[in-house]
Amino acid sequence: MYARSIAQLIEELGKLPGIGPKSAQRLAFHLLFQSKEEVKALIEAIVKAKEEVKYCSQCQNLTDINPCPICSDLNREKWLLCVVENPQDVAAMERIREYRGQYHVLHGVISPMDGVGPEDLKIRELLQRLSNQDIKEIIIATNPTVEGEATAMYLAKLIKPLGIKLTRIARGLPEGGDIDYVDQLTLVRALEGRREIDN
Amino acid sequence: MYARSIAQLIEELGKLPGIGPKSAQRLAFHLLFQSKEEVKALIEAIVKAKEEVKYCSQCQNLTDINPCPICSDLNREKWLLCVVENPQDVAAMERIREYRGQYHVLHGVISPMDGVGPEDLKIRELLQRLSNQDIKEIIIATNPTVEGEATAMYLAKLIKPLGIKLTRIARGLPEGGDIDYVDQLTLVRALEGRREIDN
Repeated sequence: MYARSIAQLIEELGKLPGIGPKSAQRLAFHLLFQSKEEVKALIEAIVKAKEEVKYCSQCQNLTDINPCPICSDLNREKWLLCVVENPQDVAAMERIREYRGQYHVLHGVISPMDGVGPEDLKIRELLQRLSNQDIKEIIIATNPTVEGEATAMYLAKLIKPLGIKLTRIARGLPEGGDIDYVDQLTLVRALEGRREIDN
Repeated sequence: MYARSIAQLIEELGKLPGIGPKSAQRLAFHLLFQSKEEVKALIEAIVKAKEEVKYCSQCQNLTDINPCPICSDLNREKWLLCVVENPQDVAAMERIREYRGQYHVLHGVISPMDGVGPEDLKIRELLQRLSNQDIKEIIIATNPTVEGEATAMYLAKLIKPLGIKLTRIARGLPEGGDIDYVDQLTLVRALEGRREIDN
């Protein structure tokens, strides 16, 4: 149907996550009709990111400076550590401008279905950090999914014996949520996590 | 929030059509965690397509061989020409395996709102073709949109004086459509285009 190199381009684009055959076709023609400069900018951004981006030796987040800006920020609390699944979660946490502690990025969750075990995550690096740094509280901020929950439990078992305060982010109704429409498990969690109202 | 080169990559990916900030972020991390070989394959596909793909000197479709395989196919009808908006439309027409004539790709439609005039389309090339080749029928297969319609009318005005039979693809209810749900204009077109039932 298409010229060989167009078909090849559509195929390669179709391998990207969330890009179906139709989107791949649309992207391919977009690239074909773009100026050489624009396409060059995209390719250079890919190449540069692939070359420069490494894991931060401390928090394991992706960074182009080691240690990363958050780990080397002297104004942040050194005793507080938030464990997240991936770099996007760090970005989400930073956007709320409420958290001033450190992070640790696991780069995934334990998921036997996908063949991901604890040894595939940055858990060894976390334990090493805990033995070197004076951490007083660890907030487990993996997602409230089956895998995120299992990973949180796994980490809790490892960390509890170290005598560090361990917390889990709260689950409950999202802001603007509706009790009538929310799923049952969320409602159960919201009840379990209820807090006394202060005057 | 992100390392500079990651932010740059997300920005470049976000310029692509249909890719919002969230998808751009997802694509960026996908590329960062992919093997060098996989990313190289994608980049090479882009570069190769940009280098090799040209307009076919006859139908103006995108091709890496000139004239394109359809134009040089001796088994196709030479007297029948289907005018379409873009290369994706040629692919869609070819998928139905019903049409055995030639194509002419306009690469757009007349759209004053977007600053696209007749001179921006491959209309000059179409007229040149009509004076060189012995075309007996032209099917105008631009989309049934305001712009597609306007472009069809514009082409009709140019081609009618040449004494070539001119047709327009039928409009009406799509297969599996519902008279109760279809928009009014489609229903009007379906009535206008009604055909006698043969026994």
